[in-house]
Amino acid sequence: MEVITEPTVNGTAARGHGLAGQDILSVSQFGPDSLSAVFELADEMRAVVRQKGGTDLLARRVLAALFYEPSTRTSASFIAAMQRLGGTVIPITQGVQFSSVSKGESLPDTIRTLEQYADVVVLRHPEVGSARVAAAAASVPVINAGDGPGEHPTQALLDLYTLQDELGTLDGLHIAMVGDLRFGRTVHSLTRLLRPYDVKLTFVSPEILRLPLDIMNEVRDAGLDVRETYNVAEIIGEVDVLYVTRVQKERFTDLEQYEELKGFYTITPELMAGARERMVVLHPLPRVGEISPAVDADPRAAYFRQVQNGMFVRMALLAAVLGKA
Amino acid sequence: MEVITEPTVNGTAARGHGLAGQDILSVSQFGPDSLSAVFELADEMRAVVRQKGGTDLLARRVLAALFYEPSTRTSASFIAAMQRLGGTVIPITQGVQFSSVSKGESLPDTIRTLEQYADVVVLRHPEVGSARVAAAAASVPVINAGDGPGEHPTQALLDLYTLQDELGTLDGLHIAMVGDLRFGRTVHSLTRLLRPYDVKLTFVSPEILRLPLDIMNEVRDAGLDVRETYNVAEIIGEVDVLYVTRVQKERFTDLEQYEELKGFYTITPELMAGARERMVVLHPLPRVGEISPAVDADPRAAYFRQVQNGMFVRMALLAAVLGKA
Amino acid sequence: MEVITEPTVNGTAARGHGLAGQDILSVSQFGPDSLSAVFELADEMRAVVRQKGGTDLLARRVLAALFYEPSTRTSASFIAAMQRLGGTVIPITQGVQFSSVSKGESLPDTIRTLEQYADVVVLRHPEVGSARVAAAAASVPVINAGDGPGEHPTQALLDLYTLQDELGTLDGLHIAMVGDLRFGRTVHSLTRLLRPYDVKLTFVSPEILRLPLDIMNEVRDAGLDVRETYNVAEIIGEVDVLYVTRVQKERFTDLEQYEELKGFYTITPELMAGARERMVVLHPLPRVGEISPAVDADPRAAYFRQVQNGMFVRMALLAAVLGKA
Repeated sequence: MEVITEPTVNGTAARGHGLAGQDILSVSQFGPDSLSAVFELADEMRAVVRQKGGTDLLARRVLAALFYEPSTRTSASFIAAMQRLGGTVIPITQGVQFSSVSKGESLPDTIRTLEQYADVVVLRHPEVGSARVAAAAASVPVINAGDGPGEHPTQALLDLYTLQDELGTLDGLHIAMVGDLRFGRTVHSLTRLLRPYDVKLTFVSPEILRLPLDIMNEVRDAGLDVRETYNVAEIIGEVDVLYVTRVQKERFTDLEQYEELKGFYTITPELMAGARERMVVLHPLPRVGEISPAVDADPRAAYFRQVQNGMFVRMALLAAVLGKA
Repeated sequence: MEVITEPTVNGTAARGHGLAGQDILSVSQFGPDSLSAVFELADEMRAVVRQKGGTDLLARRVLAALFYEPSTRTSASFIAAMQRLGGTVIPITQGVQFSSVSKGESLPDTIRTLEQYADVVVLRHPEVGSARVAAAAASVPVINAGDGPGEHPTQALLDLYTLQDELGTLDGLHIAMVGDLRFGRTVHSLTRLLRPYDVKLTFVSPEILRLPLDIMNEVRDAGLDVRETYNVAEIIGEVDVLYVTRVQKERFTDLEQYEELKGFYTITPELMAGARERMVVLHPLPRVGEISPAVDADPRAAYFRQVQNGMFVRMALLAAVLGKA
Repeated sequence: MEVITEPTVNGTAARGHGLAGQDILSVSQFGPDSLSAVFELADEMRAVVRQKGGTDLLARRVLAALFYEPSTRTSASFIAAMQRLGGTVIPITQGVQFSSVSKGESLPDTIRTLEQYADVVVLRHPEVGSARVAAAAASVPVINAGDGPGEHPTQALLDLYTLQDELGTLDGLHIAMVGDLRFGRTVHSLTRLLRPYDVKLTFVSPEILRLPLDIMNEVRDAGLDVRETYNVAEIIGEVDVLYVTRVQKERFTDLEQYEELKGFYTITPELMAGARERMVVLHPLPRVGEISPAVDADPRAAYFRQVQNGMFVRMALLAAVLGKA
């Protein structure tokens, strides 16, 4: 498909129909109206899965899931989404060498081959911009499932959907992003997606993992109320949302500093005792210690519900780009 | 699901309904009545596959097949079983690294993620006890497809089903277990499953591969008639069943001893000439020489029928745990 | 199935029914009448995919796709074909070790296991003759998806189908085979398949990559008009078909010679300027430079349509061997 860099979906596009035939490459394609349309569709998907397990909306439609790097969670989510819509999947998820690729085939050729078999392509690729290259080559919709340090738009959409689903609205929320805000792709995308909303953002990270200046400026320019701090404990009592990400040891040259700091970014039952009664903890997963398993039983722990929302949002997007919304 | 260590299925649970929502972790969950229910269901599955190729019983149901170690046979069997029931499969069978796992995710987190997408999880894992860990984390049924040297209950069930199917009954059978009885997981599970039945068991193995004492005591305590011997030829004429397993060269420190002994445990047409007219040879497969291919054409060679029974038994279990029996 | 080495399909076998229960091992099974039947079926498959995305012809039928070496293109084509027929696939395409195989299981045993689960087996294997070994062991149809340097019959069938589809007929065509004619398996198979037709063949290759003598003699003996040349430019204006294959650097001991020659076998817009208005360029893909991407927009560039034809031909073959044509 043609590369779309500006919002192409608007409020008049009832029920996500404005996405028919479109690629999903970047969160920058979406504004509040188009997001509402997608989320409404995701609500419907949830209802039909809960009631009947799925639908036949995409019967006889084929998805090519092309994963140049392994991602169990994302590929499983897209596969389940397509199957629960009644469609089928060609899984190309070996995580190892691809025969054609090892013979030196270009990404556009691989895409132009797969679109002969499939109605839609989901692509995970380690290089920034690869999803745009693929979309430019393809005549079927391409969905970016992560292009290295670039974008992972369906993750950002499911994050936002979860916020709205859990708290009923986005307006007026106080959202804290916690952990590695420098390299965290999901934090960057979600932050950008939040710009048009009336939200307050607090960024909680070690000094060396602070949010990059360009994104910080974008949210300030959008007129949002923004703060930064080093310690979750300071803000836990004020926020509606803790969006937690992993602080990787590898980011620190000074391990002593890491050991000293890591407790500031670990969510425990003790910390949760100071949180509001009505708030949620999210995490893009996988986690490795930054949320204690003892928190899982807390009704405010929403990260596994967030995982399932990913399936509903991907069902909505697949149905929409295939014109079956 | 909650970990079930005691039999939970009983004769009053008509048509396998007692398994609805349950995990399948161990042969110790099953007694004669619950086995009868499963086998009756497996008979029905065989009939519907023979007549129509399959059913739509599990339409819109999704199975996550999570294989931490490769097992072509077992994963193919579960995939075919789910597909012939009208359901779909998320195959996570790379046999290589799992992305989430390589990022250090715990097994409970992986399971709690997959259950957001799938209605049932089949798990193959190299560590003993992993299936119980997974089941404790999951709110959907977990089926143990082998946890290292631990259990592989669906294999034992299909073995027993094949005995009954081939010979019409279990009562009164004389069953010889042949080969590596020390390390053979399938022998241990089948032996335990046979305890409540009126069977005679003969264990045929090299000295260093004899059945472990604890299992031997269990079957003796159950009141079964038990014998041990070194040589298949001695008992071939008396048995209703030869359950053959591989004697691995690697188990022997003295290779001369291995060369001397291996002929005692190799099934050939010459050996079969001394067997009863109505008896069967089983093998969990793969085989590597312990049954001569020249035996395959013998109608008593039941090991490939046994493979297909595996699909029918797994269809029965999937339907049962999903409440569709 | 029994190994079939002579044509078994004939003109009286209307609508491909003569293939029911047969293996697809070699192009030598096919003559003009049976090819017509398969191509007519492929036309129908194309129509149903264009109109409805697919059919339910093979509902409840299961394909085991056993790939001992990775081949993204071929496996994706077969998977899509089976899914668009309403059937399902057990993908065994890890490209890495197979558990049973690594335990030393023979190919016949692997096949006899998979046929317990599946209604048809597609096999890709690095060794010549492996497809025949598999077919001899199997009681279900086996389709050869490439046995090393041996055959890859479905590729040759889709090549021929594309010629007829693009140009309306095979009779009277002047076909140039370009590139590595010595090792190119697809060239050999297509050439053999063309013997019964009234075509003129020109073979264009470097000296060291000329068509092997035995195949050259076969086409001469069949009475075809055959020529050889070194340079595409010389014949581009006369041909109806350019069938291009890759000239691999690795084939040359003298790299200077390679650099000197490679331009003779690279298809560019400049070269295409000298071609007829009605002609087609085919390539089995993947390509690595031997056709300039600038040629892709040329309506005579048929190689991606050729890819899709592969799916239609494989749909036709799967339906035919399963008796559902």
